[in-house]
Amino acid sequence: MTLTTAIRTEAERTYDLDRAHVFHSWSAQAQISPMTITAAAGSYVWDGDGNRLLDFSSQLVNVNIGHQHPKVVAAIQAQAATLCTIAPQHANAARSEAAHLIAERTPGDLNKIFFTNGGADANEHAVRMARLHTGRYKVLARYRSYHGGTDTAINLTGDPRRWPNDYGNSGVVHFFGPFLYRSHFNATTEAEECERALAHLESVIALEGPSTIAAIVLESVPGTAGIMVPPPGYLMGVRELCDRYGIVLIADEVMAGFGRTGKWFAVDHFDVTPDLLTFAKGVNSGYVPLGGVAISPTIAETFADRPYPGGLTYSGHPLATAAAAAAITVMSEEGIVDNAARVGAEVIGPGLRELATRHPSIGEIRGLGVFWAIELVKDQVTREPLAPYGASSPAMNAVVASCKAQGLLPFANFNRVHVVPPCTVTDEEARAGLAIIDAALDIADAGLA
Amino acid sequence: MTLTTAIRTEAERTYDLDRAHVFHSWSAQAQISPMTITAAAGSYVWDGDGNRLLDFSSQLVNVNIGHQHPKVVAAIQAQAATLCTIAPQHANAARSEAAHLIAERTPGDLNKIFFTNGGADANEHAVRMARLHTGRYKVLARYRSYHGGTDTAINLTGDPRRWPNDYGNSGVVHFFGPFLYRSHFNATTEAEECERALAHLESVIALEGPSTIAAIVLESVPGTAGIMVPPPGYLMGVRELCDRYGIVLIADEVMAGFGRTGKWFAVDHFDVTPDLLTFAKGVNSGYVPLGGVAISPTIAETFADRPYPGGLTYSGHPLATAAAAAAITVMSEEGIVDNAARVGAEVIGPGLRELATRHPSIGEIRGLGVFWAIELVKDQVTREPLAPYGASSPAMNAVVASCKAQGLLPFANFNRVHVVPPCTVTDEEARAGLAIIDAALDIADAGLA
Ligand SMILES: Cc1ncc(COP(=O)(O)O)c(C=O)c1O
Ligand SMILES: Cc1ncc(COP(=O)(O)O)c(C=O)c1O
Repeated sequence: MTLTTAIRTEAERTYDLDRAHVFHSWSAQAQISPMTITAAAGSYVWDGDGNRLLDFSSQLVNVNIGHQHPKVVAAIQAQAATLCTIAPQHANAARSEAAHLIAERTPGDLNKIFFTNGGADANEHAVRMARLHTGRYKVLARYRSYHGGTDTAINLTGDPRRWPNDYGNSGVVHFFGPFLYRSHFNATTEAEECERALAHLESVIALEGPSTIAAIVLESVPGTAGIMVPPPGYLMGVRELCDRYGIVLIADEVMAGFGRTGKWFAVDHFDVTPDLLTFAKGVNSGYVPLGGVAISPTIAETFADRPYPGGLTYSGHPLATAAAAAAITVMSEEGIVDNAARVGAEVIGPGLRELATRHPSIGEIRGLGVFWAIELVKDQVTREPLAPYGASSPAMNAVVASCKAQGLLPFANFNRVHVVPPCTVTDEEARAGLAIIDAALDIADAGLA
Repeated sequence: MTLTTAIRTEAERTYDLDRAHVFHSWSAQAQISPMTITAAAGSYVWDGDGNRLLDFSSQLVNVNIGHQHPKVVAAIQAQAATLCTIAPQHANAARSEAAHLIAERTPGDLNKIFFTNGGADANEHAVRMARLHTGRYKVLARYRSYHGGTDTAINLTGDPRRWPNDYGNSGVVHFFGPFLYRSHFNATTEAEECERALAHLESVIALEGPSTIAAIVLESVPGTAGIMVPPPGYLMGVRELCDRYGIVLIADEVMAGFGRTGKWFAVDHFDVTPDLLTFAKGVNSGYVPLGGVAISPTIAETFADRPYPGGLTYSGHPLATAAAAAAITVMSEEGIVDNAARVGAEVIGPGLRELATRHPSIGEIRGLGVFWAIELVKDQVTREPLAPYGASSPAMNAVVASCKAQGLLPFANFNRVHVVPPCTVTDEEARAGLAIIDAALDIADAGLA
């Protein structure tokens, strides 16, 4: 049996067992045909036929340090040899180091870290802290957002995945955020969009009743919903509204945090310190499940002498936090955050802008760092999306299929292709990926009227 | 610097960073003083002063295969070298193997596995599946239970940790389960308790309205709440009620599953197959965060052509599922489940019964496998607990402190000490642990009137 045959046989078993026994996230189980992935390194993954694919998805935008970084792999192996797990009530070196390294990087005075297993539970706990801190229940969250799959997190979410989970009793009220390309405020400039979005938010606060609102939750840069970088002044404006009305500001940095935008946190672009900042994904590139909440002293103080009524068996899991300590150290030592900023500014941004001049299917490109969206449209004037909100379309499917056939694993959502490679992506890899997308977009162009 | 000094210095740094930066589960942050744990092996852990402690807690009752099992450590290290993480939409060998091995062991026809990060999100997703499958919203759950820390999970929970999180809108209605020692039904025999508990449950169903109830959720053997092994016939009776009224039966086996009771699953003692079974902890002994839901064909079919509206970035995480595949294989090969049954029947059960004859502070002992509770009372006649429901007491604190001073790490809750060592515990270790508890209970006895 050749190596390739062996890999294929193994991949077939993987696929068959998957179809027999694995129930997949967000899927109609009978309608999916998962690609088997057998190996990965840096910016690449390999499928069950031995094909190499350039990972322009970073999986679910989590492998910020690339696949299988040897130092993080070694740290996981070393921690596994020392101590895999220990209950949350004890103190442990890996947990302490990770909390220290995270607190060093989180903005302002966010110095206490509550560890969770992922992004959803980080948001669940942040909302709980805000509710108990303020004694208020209602939470404001953005339309066009994603905050996770557990009940509170999916109800914070502003995308169609909330709908089947929304029984109308979650205490979440959604508002519109700034998104000039599809302005909900009839604005024509970024400044106008910013001003009107803030006025809208203040109206929602005033009419919902400031004294009923525990928190405003938002992604500093909404990710899955379309990578809408907020206009300068927006997040500061939200911060001011929160201060004015005694509302807790929760910044969800699960996707935007830990280097994705070319800074440690997306809020760093805007000099804003939230009261609670939630993270996951990039904190250890998802090598081991980990998430968490960075907490302001004021909110931590609420739980100094009153028990915080929340927890989980794996809070501050040694293996997960050892991976975080290693990943953060590697990111610092190897200038990975700066690389994300530079590749975004020098290669991806200019490259996408150039594509936009040639492809009639591109409505807008936007982003920063290694966090970019290509908004595809049927018509640049009407801006009609290439797939409807919440759905796919044959044209979008063709673009995705073409990318894969050319050796690129894309991240697609509705009418958008996101360019979200690892923060370690090289200039050459970024250029190669853009060239593949360039060719794929010809298909989209060809289908236009 | 001697080795001991080095360990102490390291442990001091761990402690100081913990106090500066780690926000702990379920705690008043200013009132805790976490014990530092630096190493672990088999049934033992080591604290920051180099003291060895017999782990009669299995941490949070999760290290079923003991600490640092070399084969599971090796499997984690090997998987780390191959592939740490991959997104849930792909197929992957580790995930497929774990799903296969779990499905082989879950009762009846529970053959599809949805992976989560822990127990709380497993329960969140099980409830969601039940709601969408039935088109009903309300969920019945037991008083005296624990189901996790996220919002839906803590609202399922029947212990005081729910109270600060209960805004009255969770759609959960609590009922009383069988617990003869503190019968809510004025019963005097197990058979009577069983019959009355089932009649009570049927009354709750009838008066809440069967057509409004999506699911009944219960721990097959309630764990943290007191290890109340249900009387023979109870779980089968609940199964029949669910069948009669079209209600989904969700068995929470997060703590009771994967060997703890001396069988793979606690429901196996009663020949009952739930519609959904949630697991975590023992599935991989918590070496890497993992949980999940085992799903019946009928419920899986609901999501064959309709997308399941739930998911998470780390669903079926390769490192976590590789640890599960290894742990399950090791448990089978090394007869670890049988060991739990045998030690329970031959050493722990008899040993505890003997203690009960001598200690006036013991109200009741109950359990099976390596899953036992010692219910401590101020008075064997009145059964007044040694600490009130939901609280601690100086007497309980003294018992716990004595255990630790003697080199045993106990699991204590309210007025109970649980005997929950790893399933790998040896007879000698079990005897040594019981001897320590024996001495500690002298303190409790001495304080009685
Ligand atoms: C912004 C944001 N918040 C929260 C989450 C949920 O994280 P998890 O999937 O780890 O629960 C995600 C996941 O994509 C996310 O992008
Ligand atoms: C029966 C039961 N269900 C659910 C959970 C929650 O699991 P986790 O802490 O992994 O969220 C626990 C944890 O102790 C448990 O004992």
